Amino acid sequence: MSRIDDIYRRIDEAERPEVFITLRPRADVEREYAASMDGGGALAGVVLAVKDNVDVAGMPTTAACPGYAYEPKADAPAVAALRAAGAVVIGKTNLDQFATGLVGTRSPYGAVRDSRRPDRISGGSSSGSAVAVALGFADIAIGTDTAGSGRVPAGLQGIVGVKPTVDVVSTEGVVPACASYDTVTIFAESLTLANRAMAAMAQAPGPRPFGPTTSLAATEHPTIAIPAELPELSEQWRAAFGAAVRHAEEAGLRIKPIDLTPFLAAARLLYDDALVAERSHAVGAFIANADAASGLDPVVSGIIGAADRFTAVELLAARTRLAELRAEAMAELGDADALMVPTAPCHPALSEVADDPVGVNSRMGTYTNFCNLFDLCGVAVPAGTVDESDGTRSQFGVTLLGRAHEDAAVMDLAHRFAAEGDIGAAWPESVAPSVELAVFGAHMRGGPLTHELSERGARWVGEVATAPCYRLVALDTVPPKPGLVRDPGGRSIAGEVWTLSPNALGEFLAALPAPMMLGSVELSDGSWVVGFGCAADAAENGEQLDRQRW
Amino acid sequence: MSRIDDIYRRIDEAERPEVFITLRPRADVEREYAASMDGGGALAGVVLAVKDNVDVAGMPTTAACPGYAYEPKADAPAVAALRAAGAVVIGKTNLDQFATGLVGTRSPYGAVRDSRRPDRISGGSSSGSAVAVALGFADIAIGTDTAGSGRVPAGLQGIVGVKPTVDVVSTEGVVPACASYDTVTIFAESLTLANRAMAAMAQAPGPRPFGPTTSLAATEHPTIAIPAELPELSEQWRAAFGAAVRHAEEAGLRIKPIDLTPFLAAARLLYDDALVAERSHAVGAFIANADAASGLDPVVSGIIGAADRFTAVELLAARTRLAELRAEAMAELGDADALMVPTAPCHPALSEVADDPVGVNSRMGTYTNFCNLFDLCGVAVPAGTVDESDGTRSQFGVTLLGRAHEDAAVMDLAHRFAAEGDIGAAWPESVAPSVELAVFGAHMRGGPLTHELSERGARWVGEVATAPCYRLVALDTVPPKPGLVRDPGGRSIAGEVWTLSPNALGEFLAALPAPMMLGSVELSDGSWVVGFGCAADAAENGEQLDRQRW
Repeated sequence: MSRIDDIYRRIDEAERPEVFITLRPRADVEREYAASMDGGGALAGVVLAVKDNVDVAGMPTTAACPGYAYEPKADAPAVAALRAAGAVVIGKTNLDQFATGLVGTRSPYGAVRDSRRPDRISGGSSSGSAVAVALGFADIAIGTDTAGSGRVPAGLQGIVGVKPTVDVVSTEGVVPACASYDTVTIFAESLTLANRAMAAMAQAPGPRPFGPTTSLAATEHPTIAIPAELPELSEQWRAAFGAAVRHAEEAGLRIKPIDLTPFLAAARLLYDDALVAERSHAVGAFIANADAASGLDPVVSGIIGAADRFTAVELLAARTRLAELRAEAMAELGDADALMVPTAPCHPALSEVADDPVGVNSRMGTYTNFCNLFDLCGVAVPAGTVDESDGTRSQFGVTLLGRAHEDAAVMDLAHRFAAEGDIGAAWPESVAPSVELAVFGAHMRGGPLTHELSERGARWVGEVATAPCYRLVALDTVPPKPGLVRDPGGRSIAGEVWTLSPNALGEFLAALPAPMMLGSVELSDGSWVVGFGCAADAAENGEQLDRQRW
Repeated sequence: MSRIDDIYRRIDEAERPEVFITLRPRADVEREYAASMDGGGALAGVVLAVKDNVDVAGMPTTAACPGYAYEPKADAPAVAALRAAGAVVIGKTNLDQFATGLVGTRSPYGAVRDSRRPDRISGGSSSGSAVAVALGFADIAIGTDTAGSGRVPAGLQGIVGVKPTVDVVSTEGVVPACASYDTVTIFAESLTLANRAMAAMAQAPGPRPFGPTTSLAATEHPTIAIPAELPELSEQWRAAFGAAVRHAEEAGLRIKPIDLTPFLAAARLLYDDALVAERSHAVGAFIANADAASGLDPVVSGIIGAADRFTAVELLAARTRLAELRAEAMAELGDADALMVPTAPCHPALSEVADDPVGVNSRMGTYTNFCNLFDLCGVAVPAGTVDESDGTRSQFGVTLLGRAHEDAAVMDLAHRFAAEGDIGAAWPESVAPSVELAVFGAHMRGGPLTHELSERGARWVGEVATAPCYRLVALDTVPPKPGLVRDPGGRSIAGEVWTLSPNALGEFLAALPAPMMLGSVELSDGSWVVGFGCAADAAENGEQLDRQRW
């Protein structure tokens, strides 16, 4: 049985018709899958589900509102980038209508149910995408995230959700929710695959550049802020967060409790103040003119329908207030490298949402609403489970949040937290220009000068050896350094390769004292990379080093 | 007679009481001037006038509205940066109230009159600052610019006005006009001094980074777009622009006429659409509650008082429309390196403005309104004069406009246009991190590899010589290159120093083929800079070069 057969069988047997709004014909998917396997891209054979507010050419984009549907002519750039890397689209997934919600129940295509306990919610708004990954209907899925839609369902479904910095991935071809704060996200079972998908998706860059990225890979004990108080969490959920904090400490992260008050205050601006006008700007005219056949969700149309009540001056005032809150929040974050929060505070039943659709939704966003407003990026990762008092078990997740453009640092931390094996260079590095640098001696890991690399955001790639035509001489430097000299009668010299931005390389070179020099060095595989050498006079005067010392 | 005495005498004799809202006591200025001359900063002894919507500690900030005045505790960062470099504040200058206007007449402190023909306007809103420089009351002046306030009066007064990219210089301590588009600017008689002042002022960085800058210094024939049509210009003013275009061609610039329609369309959004709500957000509450004693200008309060009439959704729609127009305009600009426009289209009499205050004001902004909206930067420079039909002579100016962050390129072009002698490295370079690189041989000006530097934005600094302890060897490369080797028995080698960003240096190094290397090279003055050397094996095998060849 083919992989695609297997997936369609799983979809058939699962009886979750609410997950996909449009499922592609199996034959089409099989044909593309075969071509993808032949193509051998970075995502060859990776099956992709796409949230139905993101355009895929030839399939309707509904945003979970049948009356709003249109047939896009082209893939959204984010989709096109994943397909170019080999991903195979299987279908378009259900969502909280117009991506307005964090519950997954606000859709005329049906409430999306939790992958494990069908009486509970999936989380939203990227409900179908998260459940599709959790149930193995797809390997990865595209979501969107304005107030938590790419994180809350990842948390509840026990999978990974990566939400990049606003505007570093293109949001063209995405139905806007609150356009200033919308992002395209990735769900996957593993960080490794999520990272690979983000690297591909980032080939659809948005208006803001990647980086400046910092790297925590080489920092022994990064500092992680955590909330001093944990509103909305039950005793069991608090215990799960406490376990996650202990786990982080065991992974070498330093913990610093902070006051989350200014973070939590921002949420009010997004829904109860003039920032919500962006939702009206996006689809308000459609909603105002929609009829009963349009399939409007009453909660969603209530929220967006009332979002035109603010004046321009009120909107400007809300943004000023947001900037003030952000400054307070960043001061509270201080020198911490990241902030770790519970991804969701609880896992409600469908009935709880039906009883109080706005109140429960609002609680779900406690730890996610402020993120895009404050220009943070985040990676949601699974962090154990919670034994609920009804005898069932909920998935528990934490999100590591970093400042704008610190996507790589947050990916590093998530990786460290999850201890999931090497993920390779994190995704912003794989799209931002980077240069490899071969080092020998004092700059190698554990050496006295390693910090000159790590403090410039350089990332360790691996051990290498030069081509067998070099020798080392002892240079008259403090600390003592070996000078690499090309010599046909020489040998292969062991070193390390690091990757860093051209900017960091330029700064490193500008600070490099004589007689050290940088140029092109040949490695054992015949490739040439930038690497250390030394001035000719120093090479001539230096004492030959034997093999043992270096 | 001291320099400060001289300036105060000039102020007394000029009978222009409208120029300064607050003039500092002469003794205070003299004391600061003496200290500044002793201090020897980059702006030692430079007398500075500050537009009265920018905070100077200890002097009231009025924004040309007596009832609005407050006493700031601290200098605005832009002022503090100039003072830190040695500039001496002489006083606070008049302006169109709340920086709302391009005429200079909208102030209860009096209409600011043209420096040459007192029956004409000065241009605004930075009216007092421009006239203070034109009349020699100050060497430099701070202005602000939202829709042309730092350029129109520079054009009419025949001086230089530099308007940086929005948000690269801090606007803290500045009374907001339309906060999203406000900038702090510099007026000076010469580009050289304006450039020096901008370098100092940029030590007060805003939220956006300097650069990426490109340099046109090494490009032989940059392409300058000009408007195919010249609305609002009389025949004589058209002739002056024609002469400026011919002058640009003689300076080696290529001219490309473009359709200015999408540029001109943006102006309507700033005043007649919801973008004007920012003016209400800034001071609308003050105006709504002001009484007769507040000194409100009736035209200004009419404009701002009506600016609260828009809804949040209308503001968002106006920004969407602006983004569309900007995309059209940038497509029209195409591959041109910059856009050259008349700074102002005419030089009206005070009486013309009195007869039609809004209409004339609107015409004055024809070639400036779109600039900040489209995220352009600009340098306004004098470009001859216009013989008017009444027998008087107007100053004519052009503005070179570049894309966001191209401040250095635009400064280069203005310098080339003005042919004003060396200005040294342009100001973004002097604040953005930059590195010096010493080159010998093929990368020197006119050499076969110079383009590897210039295409990375490197700027030529000057000729240098190494310390007298180097020799050159001939390397086996194509094109042939000399390899610099340190040698106590050597001599001083002639080369050049270029400056470039660390990023460009890193890219340059990453592309550098063996056996070339980069490291630290000692110059004849004993300083060390990054410079060329070569691999030790190549140095050993290379033939010694005699003095003649290099």
